[in-house]
Amino acid sequence: LCSTEVRKVTLIPGDGIGPEISAAVKKIFAAANVPIEWEPVDVTPVKGPDGQFHIPQTAIDSVYKNKIGLKGPLMTPIGKGHKSLNLALRKEFSLYANVRPCKSVEGYETPYKDVDIVTIRENTEGEYSGIEHLIVEGVVQSIKLITEKASRRVAEFAFNYARSNGRHRITAVHKANIMRMSDGLFLKCCRQTAEKHKDIKFDEMYLDTVCLNMVQDPTQFDVLVMPNLYGDILSDLCAGLIGGLGVTPSGNIGEGGALFESVHGTAPDIAGQDKANPTALLLSGVMMLQYMGLEQQAAKIRSAAFETIKEGKVLTGDLGGKSKCSEFTDEICRKVEQMK
Amino acid sequence: LCSTEVRKVTLIPGDGIGPEISAAVKKIFAAANVPIEWEPVDVTPVKGPDGQFHIPQTAIDSVYKNKIGLKGPLMTPIGKGHKSLNLALRKEFSLYANVRPCKSVEGYETPYKDVDIVTIRENTEGEYSGIEHLIVEGVVQSIKLITEKASRRVAEFAFNYARSNGRHRITAVHKANIMRMSDGLFLKCCRQTAEKHKDIKFDEMYLDTVCLNMVQDPTQFDVLVMPNLYGDILSDLCAGLIGGLGVTPSGNIGEGGALFESVHGTAPDIAGQDKANPTALLLSGVMMLQYMGLEQQAAKIRSAAFETIKEGKVLTGDLGGKSKCSEFTDEICRKVEQMK
Ligand SMILES: CC(C)[C@H](C(=O)O)[C@@H](O)C(=O)O
Ligand SMILES: CC(C)[C@H](C(=O)O)[C@@H](O)C(=O)O
Repeated sequence: LCSTEVRKVTLIPGDGIGPEISAAVKKIFAAANVPIEWEPVDVTPVKGPDGQFHIPQTAIDSVYKNKIGLKGPLMTPIGKGHKSLNLALRKEFSLYANVRPCKSVEGYETPYKDVDIVTIRENTEGEYSGIEHLIVEGVVQSIKLITEKASRRVAEFAFNYARSNGRHRITAVHKANIMRMSDGLFLKCCRQTAEKHKDIKFDEMYLDTVCLNMVQDPTQFDVLVMPNLYGDILSDLCAGLIGGLGVTPSGNIGEGGALFESVHGTAPDIAGQDKANPTALLLSGVMMLQYMGLEQQAAKIRSAAFETIKEGKVLTGDLGGKSKCSEFTDEICRKVEQMK
Repeated sequence: LCSTEVRKVTLIPGDGIGPEISAAVKKIFAAANVPIEWEPVDVTPVKGPDGQFHIPQTAIDSVYKNKIGLKGPLMTPIGKGHKSLNLALRKEFSLYANVRPCKSVEGYETPYKDVDIVTIRENTEGEYSGIEHLIVEGVVQSIKLITEKASRRVAEFAFNYARSNGRHRITAVHKANIMRMSDGLFLKCCRQTAEKHKDIKFDEMYLDTVCLNMVQDPTQFDVLVMPNLYGDILSDLCAGLIGGLGVTPSGNIGEGGALFESVHGTAPDIAGQDKANPTALLLSGVMMLQYMGLEQQAAKIRSAAFETIKEGKVLTGDLGGKSKCSEFTDEICRKVEQMK
């Protein structure tokens, strides 16, 4: 990728605080002269001719064309007919790997120090297959689907991710003692992939043991790779260790594109009040820049954001300060501009 | 139950450190004059006429007859034909509720204070159904089975447990946003059961959100009820918060009986060296005494154990001390005897 050429990026501002934090990210990116042209799209579901609600075609087209997007929080529509829009997007673009780095943020104190974990979650199947049946009244089954293709794909991704991010160890997380065939297949694929990547250490651990060890000493973990639901659980657990979803970035990577998103909620209670914390979306944007090869701009923005939090003078409420979202944003911009 | 009548209890000492810690528990129980006669049984699997390995019939008969048992750690047999003995026991006796209280232990420091959580885990179905299929080469499905009967049964158990243990709030843990039918059914049963027990507060939370909140502030939780796998995960997570499986008791409760067990491993590296920590098995024994209505003896042993840990003078290695298992045991016995 050539880093001077301007590239179009789809922007899904999202609901609630989404528009405010998206505006903050745009402002900081502009201050850092990021060569990006934003293409904002609305993903509010529209009723199709089949009576079902769908993501608008313009939004889908934009992501297919740009192959890269940044997304704020989306409201989960209530009611049986509605599926999670978050999941719909992951599925539509076959974003098979969900990557969530959780690194302790200096100045934002939690009981844990030096956490530096990346969870890599299979993002297309497993417990999220959506296949469920009523066998007889009062007896329901949900199907966890594990395929060799998706398992190998995410394992391969994990090893390549580890290597290109200077990571040394991958732990496969599983319950193959219970789900011998499904988690067994996932584990087999990880083991075989590990054979091809001897420069990265590989081990395996039961999910329950990971949880126990995680809260006792998270510094023992490096990169974790696992089936879908386990990733949902462990990524939130790790986020909790470093202070929550307000400081945790996330990326969904697929073959044809990638979508980076903040995974916190829409916070309707503070929406429109200039109180929201844009850090998670900003750091997701930084992940996106790295993915696009814009390492320099990524580094600038990252250090300006972490420096601002470390200083502790201009922080939003959830970060322990009294400043507005716009003040926090401007402080980061100021630092970015000083770095020129 | 009449507390003077001597009752027989099946004892499964277990493997590795199992015999040592079982001996410790017997000694402390004797010091407290617990009206129990132990019936030790061996559960090492024996090869049946079908070529499969089974729990010996004498062990099964003993539990059926006594309807109550205490169990040390069991080695997991390696190899495909072997199922977990722990699971086999839960299944054989239809021990439908797994109860794990996790309460901060004074004197045994962790980053968390005042944790006091009970996880109640559905223990017979869910992701542990054991039903798995190879659909085509490279495509595997595992079936998560949720029934109204088992869900209602464990929900009902949770509310009754909460009431008789002075607890005020039950949180149902689920991913019904993803597994709408299966976790949806579980949740529906919890909600309906809550309607019948208006004296106990009821709420619900996504599993991932529970994990995040748990590490940020575990004191917000009271009793948690959930499907099998989620219980496996959360009970270990909670154990981690209070110092690990070495101090965490566990009970498996069924219609016809109950089996209490320490859930830590067999620790073959220190087996036979008088170094093991009997606390988890002892506290499981205390849970058993409460279940049997032997409240007085339970209280004595519990406070002697916690007092010993709090004092910090005679502790095993994993508890931060330098004493032998037998010294720690004798110290607890001394305290129990002083209370007479
Ligand atoms: C919103 C929900 C459907 C989603 C999930 O379960 O994957 C969320 O928890 C996440 O981790 O992105
Ligand atoms: C040993 C294993 C089969 C078991 C489980 O998965 O239930 C254990 O983790 C537990 O929590 O008792």
